[in-house]
Amino acid sequence: MKLLRVGAPGRERPALLDEAGGLRDLSGLIDDLDAAFLAADGLARLARVRPDELPALDGVDLRIGPPLRPGKIVCIGLNYRDHAAETGAALPAEPVVFLKAPDTVVGPDDTVLVPRGSTRTDWEVELAVVIGRKARYLASAEEASECVAGYAISHDVSEREFQLDRGGQWDKGKSCETFNPLGPWLVTADEIPDPQDLGLRLWVNGRLRQDGTTKNMVFPVAEIVRYLSHFMVLYPGDVINTGTPAGVALGQPDPKPYLSAGDVVELEIDGLGRQRQTLAPA
Amino acid sequence: MKLLRVGAPGRERPALLDEAGGLRDLSGLIDDLDAAFLAADGLARLARVRPDELPALDGVDLRIGPPLRPGKIVCIGLNYRDHAAETGAALPAEPVVFLKAPDTVVGPDDTVLVPRGSTRTDWEVELAVVIGRKARYLASAEEASECVAGYAISHDVSEREFQLDRGGQWDKGKSCETFNPLGPWLVTADEIPDPQDLGLRLWVNGRLRQDGTTKNMVFPVAEIVRYLSHFMVLYPGDVINTGTPAGVALGQPDPKPYLSAGDVVELEIDGLGRQRQTLAPA
Repeated sequence: MKLLRVGAPGRERPALLDEAGGLRDLSGLIDDLDAAFLAADGLARLARVRPDELPALDGVDLRIGPPLRPGKIVCIGLNYRDHAAETGAALPAEPVVFLKAPDTVVGPDDTVLVPRGSTRTDWEVELAVVIGRKARYLASAEEASECVAGYAISHDVSEREFQLDRGGQWDKGKSCETFNPLGPWLVTADEIPDPQDLGLRLWVNGRLRQDGTTKNMVFPVAEIVRYLSHFMVLYPGDVINTGTPAGVALGQPDPKPYLSAGDVVELEIDGLGRQRQTLAPA
Repeated sequence: MKLLRVGAPGRERPALLDEAGGLRDLSGLIDDLDAAFLAADGLARLARVRPDELPALDGVDLRIGPPLRPGKIVCIGLNYRDHAAETGAALPAEPVVFLKAPDTVVGPDDTVLVPRGSTRTDWEVELAVVIGRKARYLASAEEASECVAGYAISHDVSEREFQLDRGGQWDKGKSCETFNPLGPWLVTADEIPDPQDLGLRLWVNGRLRQDGTTKNMVFPVAEIVRYLSHFMVLYPGDVINTGTPAGVALGQPDPKPYLSAGDVVELEIDGLGRQRQTLAPA
C-alpha cells in the first residue's frame, strides 16, 4: 500500500493511492496515520480493505502533507561508503547516531526555509524507515525486519556551519524549521522486497547532484534497527533517516554550491515517489 | 501553581497541588497538561480557578507521572562552570546542544533502568525549562523569558560509554529507556522569580553527590531560550534540560561510582520538589 496524508498543514486527512493513481479517502476508516494507528495493527486492517470501495478524493488542489505524524526521528550519519569518503571521514565501526526534532517534518513539496544567518544549507536524500512495532533489545536482523512498517523519502536538510563549526553536537544543524520534508507516501514494507537495492537521486535546479544506491550503505536497514534497539526503544511511528549517499554540497570542491532562497530541490527513490521543494528565506 | 499528573503510566490525569499540600483534580477542566493546553493559554485559564472549588483527589496510592506530555527535549551540555571543569572540558563559547528522545520521560519516582551491557550509567540533576509560547528568532532575553511556562526537576540520566566512546554523537548515551525522570511538578514561572538562584542537589544511596546552584550556569535560562530560537523553533510543551552542576560519577576519581541496579538516587531543586528513583536492570 501507498499511504499518504492530504490537506492543509496540521489538518491533513489519511488517504490511499490506488492502482490507477487515484486518491481514496481513509478518514471514514481511521483517525490518522500515526503511532496509535500503527500500534493497533492498523496496517493489517487496511490491507483487508478493497480500495475501489473507498470514496475517491479529488486530488487536484490537495496539498500532500507528511505521510504520518512521526514519533522521534533517529538519524544515522556517514552510512554510505561514498559519502563518508567525500566528507573525508573514516568509515564508522558502528552506526553514528543523532536525533532530529520531529517538528521539522513537512510535506514533500512544502517550502524549505534557509535559516537566518545560514551560509551552508545542504541537501541529503535519505531512505526513511518507519517503525511499526516496538523494538527493544532485538536479537537479530530478522527480528528487526519485522519491526519495519514501511519506507518513505526523507530530505535530511542540514546546516553545515551549525552542525560542525558551532562548538556542539551535530543536532544544532539538523533541527531548523522545515528541515525534514517527508513523503509523499508511506510505502508498506511488502512493496519493497529489498531495501538494500534502491536507487536514490537528488537534483538541485535540475542538475543531478546525488545518484546513489542503498547497496552502498555501511549498515543495512535491519542492522540499524537491531543496533538502535540496544540503545533506545523504538516505538511505532518512529522514523529512522538512514544516511545519505555521496554528492552533498559539503563534498564538492570550493566554492561549494550550498542552497539559497529560490533554489529548487527534487528527490526520488525507486518505488517511493518524488519530492520537490523550493527554498525561501526564514 | 504547582501542576502535576497522577495515575497509572500513560493514563495520568491532571491535578493541582493546593496550598495545604492536597491534590485537586483538574480533569473536569482540562484534558491534559500538554502542548495543546499550553498553546491555548491554559495556564492563564487555570490561574483564575479557585483551588478549593476543585474536587479533592485522594493521593495516598496515586503514582505521580511526569508533569506534562513533552514535545521535544533539548539538552544543553557543559553549562555549569564546575561541571565543565570536572570533566576536563573547556568552557563552551556558545551553548552545546543535543536532543533527547521524549519517550524517555517517566515520573519522578519511577524505576530507572540500567541498560543491558552498561558499565557507566551516570546521574545528572538539571533544571528543566518548559516552553509555554512559540519561540522563533527571538531578539532578546526579555522576549525569551516570556516564552517560559515554568520549571521542573529533570534527571538527565546518561550512559557515558554510549555517549562518549561508541563513535558517535552524545545522543547515543542519552535516550535509553526511562532515562528522563521529570517532575514531580510543573511549577509556573511566576513562582520562580529568579531561575538563576536555585540550589540543586542529588544523593546516591543517601550520599550527597551534587550540590550546586544555577548561579553557576555558563548560559542562563533566558539566554539559552533566545539562542536556541535561532537554530530551531521551540513550541509550547517543549522541554529544555539546562545542564548539570559538578559531582557526576564521570567527574570522580577512579574507580568512578557509576550506578548499578539497586542504587537509589534522590534529587531536589529549591521550590521544585524532590524525586527518588531506584535503579533496576533493563
